[in-house]
Amino acid sequence: MSPVPFGDRLAAAVAERESQIVCGLDPDPAKLWPGAADLADHCCQVIDAVHEAVVAVKPQLACFERSGPTGWAALETLRAHAQAKGLIVLYDGKRGDVPVTASVYAKSLSVADAFTVNPLLGEDSLLPYTATGAAPFVLVRTSNPGAADVMDLELAGGGAVWEALARLADRLGTPGPASGLKDVGAVTGATEPAHLERMRELMPATPFLLPGVGAQGGDVNALGAAFAPGRAAGLISASRSIVNAYAASGGAPADAARAEAERLRALAWDLA
Amino acid sequence: MSPVPFGDRLAAAVAERESQIVCGLDPDPAKLWPGAADLADHCCQVIDAVHEAVVAVKPQLACFERSGPTGWAALETLRAHAQAKGLIVLYDGKRGDVPVTASVYAKSLSVADAFTVNPLLGEDSLLPYTATGAAPFVLVRTSNPGAADVMDLELAGGGAVWEALARLADRLGTPGPASGLKDVGAVTGATEPAHLERMRELMPATPFLLPGVGAQGGDVNALGAAFAPGRAAGLISASRSIVNAYAASGGAPADAARAEAERLRALAWDLA
Repeated sequence: MSPVPFGDRLAAAVAERESQIVCGLDPDPAKLWPGAADLADHCCQVIDAVHEAVVAVKPQLACFERSGPTGWAALETLRAHAQAKGLIVLYDGKRGDVPVTASVYAKSLSVADAFTVNPLLGEDSLLPYTATGAAPFVLVRTSNPGAADVMDLELAGGGAVWEALARLADRLGTPGPASGLKDVGAVTGATEPAHLERMRELMPATPFLLPGVGAQGGDVNALGAAFAPGRAAGLISASRSIVNAYAASGGAPADAARAEAERLRALAWDLA
Repeated sequence: MSPVPFGDRLAAAVAERESQIVCGLDPDPAKLWPGAADLADHCCQVIDAVHEAVVAVKPQLACFERSGPTGWAALETLRAHAQAKGLIVLYDGKRGDVPVTASVYAKSLSVADAFTVNPLLGEDSLLPYTATGAAPFVLVRTSNPGAADVMDLELAGGGAVWEALARLADRLGTPGPASGLKDVGAVTGATEPAHLERMRELMPATPFLLPGVGAQGGDVNALGAAFAPGRAAGLISASRSIVNAYAASGGAPADAARAEAERLRALAWDLA
């Protein structure tokens, strides 16, 4: 039996959990939850707290790479823990390299269910990430102010660089037969909601990862266009606003994180 | 005493060693040198073989990430081994992320002397890599065929995307007082030598890393323009053509690697 295509697996998980929320895991070893023994324990505690309100977790690879071999072991631990709870695990590493090297990255990244990739090196650099069983999410427009420096440059042939990246992402991947959603996604920065409608036009069957909600300043109400092909077509990511919710609200970190994840879940579910 | 700026350190190392050659380390755990105990031992054996003919080694992070915690430990071992031999260590990871994450990558990457970075996310995403003591090398044009898909797109304001990336790289970094070479470099694909003169015009004080020589098909004779500001302004990278030289030439892997590295060294030194 061949495995269920990513788009269908994602759609089923979103429907079952009634959640489009992705909890980012960007741990700082100096600011773990009080009582957490180490990086892995902290991340597993966060997963235990939020797993009923979210559909996926998104470990930021930089935050594990920082701790060397220990960090990579922690990443492995949290991945197994999250997958055992039925969560989708999306590695946020934004890798991008020449094809021979991309094939190597593809092998280590595809232990996760999905992972972010950088398309600057062009289509041949992205092909090794497709058909791995896991879904690459191609950066199309990020949410930092500097994203305008390159991704918003206007092209001689019309449109911006990010529109060319959107077309590149759209050329890749295969829709799941049940959901119509592709197994190649796109990272579509939520701080520029005016772009979302155009992105959906260029990538009609692509799952969008919408970062920037919460600490980075995005607004969950501005994301409507992302959900046109269905609820699972727009995943909403929040990291510090969930994990550090206790700093603002007081109380136990796990209770505050669970409450904030549930608040975002309900908000997005009503919207889509 | 403040440390010597990267540009001056690079120029001194190139002059002392009479070499502009960077030996790439892209080990495949299934194809280590016969007799090598593991990934770390293989890399240290390569370093021992080539260190007199090269100025730097460039571990490809994907090839260590592939082996998980063991791989990261091997990377650490080879870095210490190479630096103890006076070699510059350049981590080839092509990282690129939003500023808060780039700061995290910057910390783990700056244990090396230099490292490659991806500029798609714009200037604010690159700033955390500057002034770390180690030198970021910004991707301007890579050597894979697909590089044309995005980096060669023509802009409405004139020039190609890679020229905008070159201008971005040129805005960063500080020249060393002795050499005039900056502490921010650029990766400038050697399979398009026609671009090199224009790159030098746009980045007059930037050290260039010229990949693609050897197995990827570049030609060391076509690189003249890179050296205009001085011999250290053009570093020439070769990986498999050195490490796997024994497959073509026969003999012991170390002898064949040493001979091929020395051949490239002499060829480039006579050219510049």
